[in-house]
Amino acid sequence: MPDSKSHANGERVLADLNALRAIGAYKTGVHKPTFSEPHRQSLDWLVQKLPEAGLAAAIDGIGNVFGTSTKSGPKLLAGSHLESQNYAGWLDGPLGVVYALEAARVLNADTSLKGAVEVAAWCDEEGHFGHFLGSRSYVGQVTEADIDAARDRTSGRTMRDALADMGLSGRARIAAEPGRHVGYLEAHIEQGDTLESGKLAIGVVTSIVGIWQYQINFVGEQNHAGTTRMAARKDAGLALAKFCVAIDERFPAACGPRTVWTTGRITLDPGAPSIIPGGAEMLFQIRDDNPAVIARLEELLRTMADEVNAKGPCTVTVEKIRTGAPAMMNAGFQDAIEAAGKVVAGGRSIRMPSGAGHDAQLLATIMPAGMLFVPSIGGISHHWTENTADADIVTGAQVFVDASRRILGG
Amino acid sequence: MPDSKSHANGERVLADLNALRAIGAYKTGVHKPTFSEPHRQSLDWLVQKLPEAGLAAAIDGIGNVFGTSTKSGPKLLAGSHLESQNYAGWLDGPLGVVYALEAARVLNADTSLKGAVEVAAWCDEEGHFGHFLGSRSYVGQVTEADIDAARDRTSGRTMRDALADMGLSGRARIAAEPGRHVGYLEAHIEQGDTLESGKLAIGVVTSIVGIWQYQINFVGEQNHAGTTRMAARKDAGLALAKFCVAIDERFPAACGPRTVWTTGRITLDPGAPSIIPGGAEMLFQIRDDNPAVIARLEELLRTMADEVNAKGPCTVTVEKIRTGAPAMMNAGFQDAIEAAGKVVAGGRSIRMPSGAGHDAQLLATIMPAGMLFVPSIGGISHHWTENTADADIVTGAQVFVDASRRILGG
Repeated sequence: MPDSKSHANGERVLADLNALRAIGAYKTGVHKPTFSEPHRQSLDWLVQKLPEAGLAAAIDGIGNVFGTSTKSGPKLLAGSHLESQNYAGWLDGPLGVVYALEAARVLNADTSLKGAVEVAAWCDEEGHFGHFLGSRSYVGQVTEADIDAARDRTSGRTMRDALADMGLSGRARIAAEPGRHVGYLEAHIEQGDTLESGKLAIGVVTSIVGIWQYQINFVGEQNHAGTTRMAARKDAGLALAKFCVAIDERFPAACGPRTVWTTGRITLDPGAPSIIPGGAEMLFQIRDDNPAVIARLEELLRTMADEVNAKGPCTVTVEKIRTGAPAMMNAGFQDAIEAAGKVVAGGRSIRMPSGAGHDAQLLATIMPAGMLFVPSIGGISHHWTENTADADIVTGAQVFVDASRRILGG
Repeated sequence: MPDSKSHANGERVLADLNALRAIGAYKTGVHKPTFSEPHRQSLDWLVQKLPEAGLAAAIDGIGNVFGTSTKSGPKLLAGSHLESQNYAGWLDGPLGVVYALEAARVLNADTSLKGAVEVAAWCDEEGHFGHFLGSRSYVGQVTEADIDAARDRTSGRTMRDALADMGLSGRARIAAEPGRHVGYLEAHIEQGDTLESGKLAIGVVTSIVGIWQYQINFVGEQNHAGTTRMAARKDAGLALAKFCVAIDERFPAACGPRTVWTTGRITLDPGAPSIIPGGAEMLFQIRDDNPAVIARLEELLRTMADEVNAKGPCTVTVEKIRTGAPAMMNAGFQDAIEAAGKVVAGGRSIRMPSGAGHDAQLLATIMPAGMLFVPSIGGISHHWTENTADADIVTGAQVFVDASRRILGG
């Protein structure tokens, strides 16, 4: 067992998470888009709480919240985000922020431990205005022009207007201070069913997968759906459907054990009931943490396209529109989480990649980073029914605090 | 050979068609949407021309142009339409109107022939504001409320505003006068390649196919495209693609010789690159002139849906949203066209259904109706490159005039 000074207070963690759930509540989840009123209140809530952990609170010019410590010794940065997807779950983000707050409360007050946990809530991880704008700003990847151009994808409101409404106009953005932190630790719900189906408590994240995205365009011949004989048709929509089915048949033999691929969008041109589609377009995505697997699948994709072009009657082009870079989690951090899982959760942990993106992938570009997962009931996420058993939330908090202590060298 | 009094003047026909092409010209085609300025000028052109055929001209309250005769004896109604699809071809519509005008010019002046050809240009066959509004109005299927509700599908302009701009507000609509006509004859470009590929000059239309339309909805489970293992997915988009391919594989064994089917629109829900589609929808259409064939295909479609539902992981529903009614062309009219084709075109004709809809299908609900086709180069239609060889246009006009004479009993 961890000593009592490293022990997370489970009731306090659950109370904090429920306090955040009450701000912007929607059914059993929340509706807390970036820079909405409930989001602003959630940031304020955190600013009020940080002093409990001996941390000085600040909100920077992009809406990141930081709690910084004056305690001597190594400093671990920990956190996640407080805004939500539209009409989504209560734990996606807040879980990691409250775990970080709890670790700071427990460890920063422990005078026998050198060092402290500092807390961050990264703004807009959920991408209402962009992609990981808060953590990307912190690691130096966001320009003022990026902010000028950003708009809320739902309402169209500019990010500049939103920042002004938040009272953050003209405020400086806080950038990473080289050498300040020994690394970054983040907890998150799994958003899949690996832990639940394996009756496990903790996922030790080995990597955050990269995302490769392709636009696949089919060209046939637009024609009249009544007067064009079946044998004379060049139906781009049918060619696309065949390609989707071929991917489903051929990818499994070439993929890795955890590769996933998705056709998220299909568009037929012109998309009218009485016109044979002359064009068809699909947005196709592959995720893996192993670029060699992706290279193999991309070659298969291009081979399949060549076959379509050789056979006809339609032609196809495959354009890569996004190249992923998997983020590897630090080996020492993984060991610390696993060791904490042994002590606190009876070893019910598994090493696994993260199929979803997280702020940790940005932090990993400038410092050692680690992540742990807790189970998602039914694997559900990005939906208001998202949930995790209270017991699993508490176990996760205890593992997080213990792992933080280990990383700080305690 | 037909006697000279029945002989179409090929040069006059080509000149008239080129005069109409010059109004609203777009590349080698025209852009002449319903109630546009070029459309209005085209109607005026016809009104000016009708007296050449001894016809009194009128435009009614829905934009139909009529040329009526006071000659004694039976009357044949003939015509087509003058507006075009957006940026489309020069012959789709005008060919039938000019043939009708030519038949009236030749036959109405022939004192040895009892009876006359009357000419109609039906408004909005191309469906900018609705479906066959002009001919449907003439046969009594359009209410004032239908006109109140109609809007231009491109611009959104109301039909009432458009009629006002045309100076047609408050003008009465002309309805069919029971017993006035022995029937209706229409010529049109084929819009397919049956005639061209068979080196034929004339299509004798046996029927206008009915259109059956289905909305096919797949329900899976929306989930995160990164965290959801392939084995755990219920991808509605993939289920749809498999269904399209299954239709392609199984319909040919159950269809008729000229059945056509088309998936014109596909929508994935929510249609985002990183979300597994929880819903997918396709708009599916079948055309045939034989309801028994359709019944067989619809049963196959429902069997295939049952198989999807039994096997999983997604469910599917098939909803019929449009039931077609094929319009049979009058046997005597078919014989007249075929006989004219023997005399004028050396028998280079074929009996065939029309896969596209035409005003003749509305007229067929109240009187005997017939149609003839001329070849489309490359089978192209609804595109500005649509064309027919001048020689084929002239041959078609001669067959049309001769068939009209035969129908009038000459």
